Amino acid sequence: MSLASWNDGAARSAILAYLDGIADVDAADRVAVVDNDGTLWCEKPAYIQAFFLLARLHEQAAADPELASSPVVQALLANDLAGAASHGMGEVVRVLMNTHADLTTEEFDVAVAHWLADFRHPRFGSGFTGLVYAPMLELLDLLREHGFRVFIVTGGGVDFVRPVARQLYGVQPDDVVGSAVEVEFTRRDGQVVLSRTAKLAGSPNEGPPKVVNIHARIGRRPLVAIGNSAGDREMLEYAHTGPLPSLCLVVDHDDEAREYKYGGEALTNPDAEPIATTAERFGWTTISMRDDWTRVFA
Amino acid sequence: MSLASWNDGAARSAILAYLDGIADVDAADRVAVVDNDGTLWCEKPAYIQAFFLLARLHEQAAADPELASSPVVQALLANDLAGAASHGMGEVVRVLMNTHADLTTEEFDVAVAHWLADFRHPRFGSGFTGLVYAPMLELLDLLREHGFRVFIVTGGGVDFVRPVARQLYGVQPDDVVGSAVEVEFTRRDGQVVLSRTAKLAGSPNEGPPKVVNIHARIGRRPLVAIGNSAGDREMLEYAHTGPLPSLCLVVDHDDEAREYKYGGEALTNPDAEPIATTAERFGWTTISMRDDWTRVFA
Repeated sequence: MSLASWNDGAARSAILAYLDGIADVDAADRVAVVDNDGTLWCEKPAYIQAFFLLARLHEQAAADPELASSPVVQALLANDLAGAASHGMGEVVRVLMNTHADLTTEEFDVAVAHWLADFRHPRFGSGFTGLVYAPMLELLDLLREHGFRVFIVTGGGVDFVRPVARQLYGVQPDDVVGSAVEVEFTRRDGQVVLSRTAKLAGSPNEGPPKVVNIHARIGRRPLVAIGNSAGDREMLEYAHTGPLPSLCLVVDHDDEAREYKYGGEALTNPDAEPIATTAERFGWTTISMRDDWTRVFA
Repeated sequence: MSLASWNDGAARSAILAYLDGIADVDAADRVAVVDNDGTLWCEKPAYIQAFFLLARLHEQAAADPELASSPVVQALLANDLAGAASHGMGEVVRVLMNTHADLTTEEFDVAVAHWLADFRHPRFGSGFTGLVYAPMLELLDLLREHGFRVFIVTGGGVDFVRPVARQLYGVQPDDVVGSAVEVEFTRRDGQVVLSRTAKLAGSPNEGPPKVVNIHARIGRRPLVAIGNSAGDREMLEYAHTGPLPSLCLVVDHDDEAREYKYGGEALTNPDAEPIATTAERFGWTTISMRDDWTRVFA
């Protein structure tokens, strides 16, 4: 049944009313963009990708005493992000980007797959497949039933999110838009491979860059946009201010018992307006985890 | 009938034998990357996009005497590309990129649509829909029947090629990978829009960047790659040197009577090895327009 894990409240009603009202909208215009961390799966106590990067940093520090002596590395390995950031976020990013530099893109895929297979969430004990929100999977299915093409538009690393998106959300690798590292074209033993660098390709995919990258990658203004933080604001506003009817949804993490309770600040832009305030101003629909969902995890 | 416009020759046999031999290949791996200019549609006497840019340059020069006094502009308007290039290709690119700077992406879509509706090819007299190669449309259909997802990977501007790809090839806008200009996030009268600049975003999508962008955008190594110039070499080599069986095809323009006769040099890299030489070395299949196709245009 559609939206079986949703209570019969305002969010569910708004979704169904929107989908009932777009019979005249062309199939080609039916594009949905959906944030990942905190929108489709759990992002606490830290981004899942951060666990992945830290696991590799532990290995690197164990093998390299010089690296282990860096105060930034020590703070990161102690899960002290504030302490690490006090040395400058640029240095934190540099250390984290170096965890998988020089791998080919195909070696990186293998590293992600191995790590995902073993990861267990520190609070819930579940693997990565147990961290996805069941009601959101139902919503993605419902959008597809109504002819929407669903794209993931994430601040996370595109190469990390792709295998997750395929397995968890049924989203193909080319339908994931994310942050990326620069890769270098090279030939090894006669084979063309791409070698990862430690350098970010362009800006992180948060805020205005989400809109720029939606155009670059998808080439159409979306009608449906779903997020949970200030880093999703511009993407939601892009959908909202187009000529066709739009549906903008914001997930509110207000369920300490079943998940977490926290505001929708953008970690990457702490001075931005909270997304709840923006949502109210534009009249976007808020999804209350506590009130709108009969269950949280799939 | 499949490949109805193909003679029963080596190219047709190679295509059918390849598709017969990949029963064990996963659907998720069935990715085909196809060049556009000179591979799917006619690129002579100039890239179709060049006609579009020059039409706008004529308008701009008529309205702006200072612009019209530039020797580069004068050479371009006289269709004297060599003369224009003698002032430096950087200046040529700057002039051409300026033809559509400051438009929003949506205004640009309208400009392309209007121009495409009126364009007639100087030799064939046909509109843009008459410049596509009928045998290639049949090949794209056959690939899709075998579960392939077909992507256009073009050196052309992605925003110019997208509407063409949708109308001519049935390829969605997000399945076009091309060169791009940088766009700027902005708000106009409360609406989020993207404003085009005159600056290229990254490298032109030719040669090694085609492989880098295939990874960035598609996220999988293709199995089928089709091109016609040295600018497609690395893309073909990427498909060829992967772990799964691949099919690499090179269109040879050897049909002066029905289309044009010219070699497969990369206009953007004139010192590169001719693609015919590369194809022979790797054992790629050449498609002779003259011998393999019973008709050329759709």
